[in-house]
Amino acid sequence: MINRLCIIGVGLIGGSVARSARARHQVKTIQGFDSNPENLRKSQELGVIDEACRSPEEAVKGADLVVIATPVGAAEALLTRLKPCWSEHTVYTDVGSTKVGFRKAAERVFEKIPANLVPGHPIAGAEMSGVEAARADLFAGKRVILTPLPETSETATETVRQFWLGLDAIVSIMKPDHHDAVFAATSHLPHVLAFVLTEMLGRKDEQDEIFQYAAGGFRDFTRIASSDPRMWVDICMANQAEITQLIKQYCKALEQATAMLAGQDEQQLFTLFERAQGARQRFLDQPHNKTT
Amino acid sequence: MINRLCIIGVGLIGGSVARSARARHQVKTIQGFDSNPENLRKSQELGVIDEACRSPEEAVKGADLVVIATPVGAAEALLTRLKPCWSEHTVYTDVGSTKVGFRKAAERVFEKIPANLVPGHPIAGAEMSGVEAARADLFAGKRVILTPLPETSETATETVRQFWLGLDAIVSIMKPDHHDAVFAATSHLPHVLAFVLTEMLGRKDEQDEIFQYAAGGFRDFTRIASSDPRMWVDICMANQAEITQLIKQYCKALEQATAMLAGQDEQQLFTLFERAQGARQRFLDQPHNKTT
Repeated sequence: MINRLCIIGVGLIGGSVARSARARHQVKTIQGFDSNPENLRKSQELGVIDEACRSPEEAVKGADLVVIATPVGAAEALLTRLKPCWSEHTVYTDVGSTKVGFRKAAERVFEKIPANLVPGHPIAGAEMSGVEAARADLFAGKRVILTPLPETSETATETVRQFWLGLDAIVSIMKPDHHDAVFAATSHLPHVLAFVLTEMLGRKDEQDEIFQYAAGGFRDFTRIASSDPRMWVDICMANQAEITQLIKQYCKALEQATAMLAGQDEQQLFTLFERAQGARQRFLDQPHNKTT
Repeated sequence: MINRLCIIGVGLIGGSVARSARARHQVKTIQGFDSNPENLRKSQELGVIDEACRSPEEAVKGADLVVIATPVGAAEALLTRLKPCWSEHTVYTDVGSTKVGFRKAAERVFEKIPANLVPGHPIAGAEMSGVEAARADLFAGKRVILTPLPETSETATETVRQFWLGLDAIVSIMKPDHHDAVFAATSHLPHVLAFVLTEMLGRKDEQDEIFQYAAGGFRDFTRIASSDPRMWVDICMANQAEITQLIKQYCKALEQATAMLAGQDEQQLFTLFERAQGARQRFLDQPHNKTT
């Protein structure tokens, strides 16, 4: 049980952490800060947080656990502000989608990364945004990855792990660079591909009205292109090297497919498509996917 | 009202044409043929067709309307078989996903393309397959594209148009090459992209178990990679030139995005992502998408 929980950045994720913790009686009081005053007011009105604080410094005061739920690009400035009032009686964690960048930001801010800072990343709902979309069951049955650093204390990691388990999440521990490689492949690359395709076809649509003939397959394939552009620019910049390398691999794979098409190599193309179908089935067969 | 409807290839699409026509009282009797005897037997057992015929020649006998619902790659061989028993009292149409290839196949088979052959393409449900998946409402509110040729008679086109309208579809008329260009962009390209990505990540998953961390966005983005590989090889081969050209354009667009990433050009990347988000919204705002 957390006595005082602090949420910095009360959007979809921060707000859902608050709602989930309250619904599961994991917390007594929730104090929050958001750089958007209107959003902060709303989050208190909706009962997501109990106390709306005027600054991050005020919000972290007396907290047992601080959840940093700002956009990835805002983490370094926030850590810089929190440094002078950093407390050894508090455990700090974040929810950012890239973990190497977060470690580097922490390294730049602190001479030595604090033992009570536990980087984390819940894998949940990025298509909607805003505190109005916050849900008490957003993390139930979903994965949360923690990426503790060599400097991180085991006690602090255990506190954060227990907190997420209390929200019914499935918690894994990973190294930051492994985390970023895995999510570059399964999340960041698909987002970039969807954004680039949808933009390209959008230009064709302006000339040729092709979208009126697009159907359900197109709708699903491009769904992630409706994600928040600002958030995804942040993620792409923070994980730029991994994503760039994957795009290059992907373009090579597309060149090979083009060669099969141009060479009318039906057998090779069939093998490629069949392997893809099999791979997706393997994804669907994950125990985690079966239960959701 | 069609007196005798003939379905050649009683799978998902052929079977759904039969079920839809019967449910809407558009037809008296349905006779069918399928190259798979087991499938043919099943389609009669399920009441999808009334009469299971032992050959395409037998199936078309006395039919007012023949719907060719075989895979795209099988159309030419079928037209060759039907040529000797081609009847001027019958109207013929097909449901193939590529229309230039179908025109070329017809040109090779007939000295002069028959006036009563009306090529068509219903835009509906390609992820499932088989007559068991056939549904009486598969085409309701969905688009059907007819691509009549200069040789096609207006009466025949009108017969096919009325038939689809009777199944509650929305019918458009288009030139075959325009059809293939539009669907290369909104359907064929996305399928190839999804197959190639899923195959590439499947290889990473074998080494590194990345799929266990993939979430809902990945599930949607790769859904079309679960489509039937054989059917998609046929489509890709039939529309190879258009698809190849689009893949090249797409790789160029990806190179530009990579340059923005490598150059840390946040503003350009943001503009790209925002334009993508806007384009998808334009797709969602199509009147047709609003009603489904």
